[in-house]
Amino acid sequence: MTASSNHLTLGPGAEFDAVRATIARWGAIARGTGDDGAVLDVPPGMKIVMSTDTSVEHVHFRRAWLSPEEIAYRAGAAAISDLAAMGAMPLAMTIALTLPENWREQSMALADGIAIIARDTNTPIVGGDLTTGSELSIGVTVLGTVRTPLMRSGANAGDSLWVTGRLGGPMLALEAFERGEAPTPVHRHRFARPVPRLREAQWLAEFGATAAIDISDGVVSDAGHLAAASGKEISIDLDRLPLIEGASADVAARSGEEYELLVTGPSTIDAREFERKFGIPLTAIGEVSTVGADGPGVVTRMAGARVPTPKGHDHFTAP
Amino acid sequence: MTASSNHLTLGPGAEFDAVRATIARWGAIARGTGDDGAVLDVPPGMKIVMSTDTSVEHVHFRRAWLSPEEIAYRAGAAAISDLAAMGAMPLAMTIALTLPENWREQSMALADGIAIIARDTNTPIVGGDLTTGSELSIGVTVLGTVRTPLMRSGANAGDSLWVTGRLGGPMLALEAFERGEAPTPVHRHRFARPVPRLREAQWLAEFGATAAIDISDGVVSDAGHLAAASGKEISIDLDRLPLIEGASADVAARSGEEYELLVTGPSTIDAREFERKFGIPLTAIGEVSTVGADGPGVVTRMAGARVPTPKGHDHFTAP
Repeated sequence: MTASSNHLTLGPGAEFDAVRATIARWGAIARGTGDDGAVLDVPPGMKIVMSTDTSVEHVHFRRAWLSPEEIAYRAGAAAISDLAAMGAMPLAMTIALTLPENWREQSMALADGIAIIARDTNTPIVGGDLTTGSELSIGVTVLGTVRTPLMRSGANAGDSLWVTGRLGGPMLALEAFERGEAPTPVHRHRFARPVPRLREAQWLAEFGATAAIDISDGVVSDAGHLAAASGKEISIDLDRLPLIEGASADVAARSGEEYELLVTGPSTIDAREFERKFGIPLTAIGEVSTVGADGPGVVTRMAGARVPTPKGHDHFTAP
Repeated sequence: MTASSNHLTLGPGAEFDAVRATIARWGAIARGTGDDGAVLDVPPGMKIVMSTDTSVEHVHFRRAWLSPEEIAYRAGAAAISDLAAMGAMPLAMTIALTLPENWREQSMALADGIAIIARDTNTPIVGGDLTTGSELSIGVTVLGTVRTPLMRSGANAGDSLWVTGRLGGPMLALEAFERGEAPTPVHRHRFARPVPRLREAQWLAEFGATAAIDISDGVVSDAGHLAAASGKEISIDLDRLPLIEGASADVAARSGEEYELLVTGPSTIDAREFERKFGIPLTAIGEVSTVGADGPGVVTRMAGARVPTPKGHDHFTAP
């Protein structure tokens, strides 16, 4: 994917030694690093999709909850999930790592976590920046390629609202962590190892998906982003939400950092074929309609009756 | 440059309010933000260059030294300078801002600094990520386009070594700041407002430049990167270094964060035409030769005699 697949030799210095060690650890998934920038070929007819995402200690994760490998994996998965949400496939990623003194011994474990998600998703690591600082921060910028992007703004009145996977795991894991308890293995896994739904998005686009977003703020909040961008009303039947074991509909409605896909498209999408192909459910949870008197937004229902809309997740106001 | 030039409407929440305010402040230089990723068209026949750079408070700058606008400008300029070093022109940038509580009131001034460098270099801001944290960090990832990239590895034996501008300003400014004094306006300006040499790099590539790097670690250290990547010996005549007023050759040799270009290429490049066109000097400061017994590296001379190589700048070991 890159013009130069061998690593250029760096000059002397501690930063370069640390970078060299990381690149060696990454092996073949790191490509063309060492120049001022990476050089990438773009196949003719393809557009580029670009997205950036930062994970900061105490804001996005706590050290006690996850292994360094999991922390880095999650940071990469969150960024790559944005490519899935656009219907794009990965082309390259860069890693901006701020590594405080008290994380230095974990630097190889962090590198391993990045490498796992990079290999899982076939995303070459083409560059990075390593700096010291007072708190661990992992900045990931991803590039993808796509012929026709799946935008948030494409939802049409009459579309069904579909969601992949089962919701609630990350919130239940977080709540357990915050009570000082161990989450169940299933909930913990959903929190620690989110899977970008890249191939699922390709499949959904092929079968007529009109708009997509990945669930990072909670399904109801993210449906709000689709509704706002598309200028539509989206209704969600909370009792149709696909639940992870132990989750209530309210938890599933509000759980963030799921990185499942929320998609609008024809009601005729073959959910059984999807489940057979990808091993996770695809569930119709609502409908898109023209805006009413309240303007674009989300309405939620339980057993057919309007209920107050559950509130989602907002990192920036979190303590 | 982007497929969608209008901003999509975001849903509710404090993070989105802050992002909305920033996008509004940026005006036309911010494009297509608001979806999961930005969509970019790449002109046929062009390759993509990608680079990432992080500026962290206390590591790369101190609050007392620069205005918030200058801090953000520098962060952007440092990243865009990597495109210049590859002979690329900017296509897009994303901004990952970690904004601690005690910087909230400066968020618009930070946004303005990013906008100035984005407009100066015609680099659309196509996305970003805003998070809280304990220290200010500005992560900038840039994309550029180039037909034939200018690599660090291209230096040939017999090439001359050329440098743009006059060196030493940033180091003299830093030394003054660290003594608690005000730098001279010239030195301060060189530190606070580095200029990515984008058009200069295009011109140099057109006239036969074979390799390039931007001076971030000091001209001698960065020549070492060229030498290592090209497998050559590079000799620098320290008494030929172009000096900013008040700088010694030793300061000019070691001053980092210059963001001037260090280029190898024919000895016949027309330096006078360069100066007429760009208003800064272009100076031949050394030569490239085949490696001797010591392997690839830099040798330094004063009045023709070998002298010990001045040591550069290494962020990662800095206190």
